Amino acid sequence: MSGNGPLAQVRTAVRRFLLEHRPERVTVAVSGGADSLALAAVTAKLAPGARAVVVDHGLQPGSAEVAARAARTCAELGLAAEVRTVVVDGPGGPEAAARRARYAALRPERGLVLLGHTRDDQAETVLLGLGRGSGPRSIAGMRPLDPPWGRPLLGVPRAATAAACAELGLEPWTDPHNADPAFTRVRLRTEVLPLLEDVLQGGVADALARTAAQLREDCDALDELAAAFDGDCCAVGDLDGLPAALRRRVLRRWLLAEGVPELSDSHLRSVDALVGDWRGQGGVWLAGGFVARRAHGRLILEAVQA
Amino acid sequence: MSGNGPLAQVRTAVRRFLLEHRPERVTVAVSGGADSLALAAVTAKLAPGARAVVVDHGLQPGSAEVAARAARTCAELGLAAEVRTVVVDGPGGPEAAARRARYAALRPERGLVLLGHTRDDQAETVLLGLGRGSGPRSIAGMRPLDPPWGRPLLGVPRAATAAACAELGLEPWTDPHNADPAFTRVRLRTEVLPLLEDVLQGGVADALARTAAQLREDCDALDELAAAFDGDCCAVGDLDGLPAALRRRVLRRWLLAEGVPELSDSHLRSVDALVGDWRGQGGVWLAGGFVARRAHGRLILEAVQA
Repeated sequence: MSGNGPLAQVRTAVRRFLLEHRPERVTVAVSGGADSLALAAVTAKLAPGARAVVVDHGLQPGSAEVAARAARTCAELGLAAEVRTVVVDGPGGPEAAARRARYAALRPERGLVLLGHTRDDQAETVLLGLGRGSGPRSIAGMRPLDPPWGRPLLGVPRAATAAACAELGLEPWTDPHNADPAFTRVRLRTEVLPLLEDVLQGGVADALARTAAQLREDCDALDELAAAFDGDCCAVGDLDGLPAALRRRVLRRWLLAEGVPELSDSHLRSVDALVGDWRGQGGVWLAGGFVARRAHGRLILEAVQA
Repeated sequence: MSGNGPLAQVRTAVRRFLLEHRPERVTVAVSGGADSLALAAVTAKLAPGARAVVVDHGLQPGSAEVAARAARTCAELGLAAEVRTVVVDGPGGPEAAARRARYAALRPERGLVLLGHTRDDQAETVLLGLGRGSGPRSIAGMRPLDPPWGRPLLGVPRAATAAACAELGLEPWTDPHNADPAFTRVRLRTEVLPLLEDVLQGGVADALARTAAQLREDCDALDELAAAFDGDCCAVGDLDGLPAALRRRVLRRWLLAEGVPELSDSHLRSVDALVGDWRGQGGVWLAGGFVARRAHGRLILEAVQA
């Protein structure tokens, strides 16, 4: 009785995720929306003993009732459910602050906390990262497993979670923020992605999610190789045979380990030029009062008195 | 008298490109549009002896006059100029066929052929690649140097080439195809990118071009490391310590070198699973009548009789 419908699609994704990662304990983060409700319903059957936590951000009138109702639904689905009320404040926009508060409330859970992010959330994340232009890592999207977080639905379209809820007779809550064009993510979802789908003749969310997965693998491979570098990070002779993108990762690791507090891409490239484009140039000033320079075939990092 | 205006921006980009790559001979590919005309004007001053080739695709009524006029303008700018007429046909859409014909007409040039692609062309290319979803390489965009092609303007906004032409009193030709929404690229340019700029609050073309550059470097690094792999491609023990994205590149090179005519991502992943996810599974059928399987800690590729 598995079938090919939306509910089966959600179930297959969650079953695969649980089989692959075998968490010792499972908590589902539930907002009451269709994504997390479908995830909760399916997880209740597949992971006996799983729990649900509903976070009440207190951002909208009636949020306590929404949270209580979601918790009741989870209990009816067979999950031990509780509501946690958080305070949303601090720097960044309201979306970022709410995410921070939510993650802080969920992080202490043992085992894995399952989040309901779908393929469409992933596509929006990739587009947001593209707009930032801060490199491959920023368009590599969210990871399926990033303990304590687990995202079993990253390959499932959002439409499937809504249809799965309907199939189960569940009535998800619709967050009015999800239609508020003041949020960048909402405009990506409601304006940019539909237009891209039209112009590129379909399959865009899937293509973005697939590309993100491959980018993550490429980034991970280069990070892993940089971490495994067993040469001398200061010896130009050990560095200059490396491909540029790997060499810069080795240098970044070295500089951060030596205490440089932050490193822009352009600073990193200037240090890298001491190896790969050496024309006798002078030292490179870095954050935290550090200077990197080259002398006698070696890189030297000095802390300069302010 | 360099200044900060659009003409100075085009000039700086071309000067840097020529200083970096020092081509023995320079040909500018000119359509008569603002991008290639600005490129031609600046190159005429910076690379004495440079030539211009105008390709007449014969696709539109009056194309011969457009080409002749562009060639005259180039001659007035001080470039030896000629028109080459090509025949556009073959598979794919009209854009792809025109590009193929144009590149075939220009490829035999000695030295470098400079193309007028701008930062906005690069952004469109990245979005097209994203829509295809065929991996990091497809969103890594065009290369500044890809002999015989050189693209000095990949960091220059399209608006700057139009303004540079105005500054020089040049009247560029406007290709009516550039406004025809039947072309995917035109819709990306006129609909998607302006909407993305609005939603993400500017800087999108620049961010896309910057991301593409970093992706190219990452892809190149992994390709270079795969080419330098000095283990035994068939020995599971030599392969399984490699990061997955590198291991798959090593396997791809090996399979193609052994004569497998083409390799989809999912076939490659199935072969890779013989190393990284071994559960005693059977052989993997590949294009060209090949089967890859694992036996006694080694990968074996067999050509099966049809």
